[in-house]
Amino acid sequence: MKLNKKGMLVVVSGPSGVGKGTVRKALFELDNQMFSYSVSMTTRKPREGEIDGVDYYFVSREEFEQRIKDDMFLEYAEFVGNYYGTPIDKVEEKLNEGLEVILEIETAGALQVRKKVHDAILIFLVPPTKQALYDRLIRRGTESSYQVEKRIAKADNEFRLAHKYDYIVVNDEINNAADRIYAIIRAEHAKTERSIHSYLEILEEENGK
Amino acid sequence: MKLNKKGMLVVVSGPSGVGKGTVRKALFELDNQMFSYSVSMTTRKPREGEIDGVDYYFVSREEFEQRIKDDMFLEYAEFVGNYYGTPIDKVEEKLNEGLEVILEIETAGALQVRKKVHDAILIFLVPPTKQALYDRLIRRGTESSYQVEKRIAKADNEFRLAHKYDYIVVNDEINNAADRIYAIIRAEHAKTERSIHSYLEILEEENGK
Repeated sequence: MKLNKKGMLVVVSGPSGVGKGTVRKALFELDNQMFSYSVSMTTRKPREGEIDGVDYYFVSREEFEQRIKDDMFLEYAEFVGNYYGTPIDKVEEKLNEGLEVILEIETAGALQVRKKVHDAILIFLVPPTKQALYDRLIRRGTESSYQVEKRIAKADNEFRLAHKYDYIVVNDEINNAADRIYAIIRAEHAKTERSIHSYLEILEEENGK
Repeated sequence: MKLNKKGMLVVVSGPSGVGKGTVRKALFELDNQMFSYSVSMTTRKPREGEIDGVDYYFVSREEFEQRIKDDMFLEYAEFVGNYYGTPIDKVEEKLNEGLEVILEIETAGALQVRKKVHDAILIFLVPPTKQALYDRLIRRGTESSYQVEKRIAKADNEFRLAHKYDYIVVNDEINNAADRIYAIIRAEHAKTERSIHSYLEILEEENGK
């Protein structure tokens, strides 16, 4: 029996290059989970092979801006001239189905979510050492050294945001990090403020017999 | 790497007959745990085979009452003419060694602990249904029906205390309940307010290089 039936909104964020994407993937490969991924909306053109509604919802700039005005995003941002955002209605649908919705997003987006969904769980993924993250950013090697330096500067700023999150999870090893996040989700379901209503219902039922 | 190195005080309580003792045992049989049990102090006489310092610390009534005056108990109570209590110094020693201390105690004691240790984690173990607990109390069969009725009345009162705890854990199956408690302990270690100091130390170390 699960006390808290409604799904939870779980935000996995952290400094650039910490490995949010790989940890999120490992999380979805765990047994017995009820995780759901939220498809983002974007104004960038689909790349070859990308499917609308699967990889992204592809919309026009006008449509995106109308949705911003209508307050229809949990969070959104503009990168290199394109908008990216999380549609609020899709997330709510899934939460109501009892699925946990995992959002893997940048720190700016994570803090927007906090303002809209007060009981969202914000997880800050951190490297075991700062150097480990620098090494990773350098090793990627697909970017110019100017780009790498820019990303390191960004990560350095993001390191300071930890106190705005509910949990700090060390990504020393991908599966360990995923296990820790899973433990957090299970624990959150058991929290008294989340589970007391279902618990009281159980007691009521018994009394009604 | 573990962010929060100090052990945590975890109180497992719940209504009479819910199975606190068996769940606690299952918890200690889990792999990779660092759980420690706190030996209680009592004024009752040792039974055959009981060892001082292992089963209980056996002390005189005078000594126990002096310790109450000296505020040396995390919690204590009197049952059928004997005192039982948790010595505060033994618990602190273990927490400082980085061990989690699990206290399996009655609801009255749990609420005393809350007052003394603000960051203790209070877990309320509940049966999947009220009837399941009644059945269990009746099936024990070692007690007169008067005793059973008294215990049911006590449990009924205790059911109402859930909101005073941090977590509500359903004991539908012993190992499930133990797993849930383990998840709670792992999640608590990752909580920002517990882990931020160690996290900031990591950042400092790197900067010092």
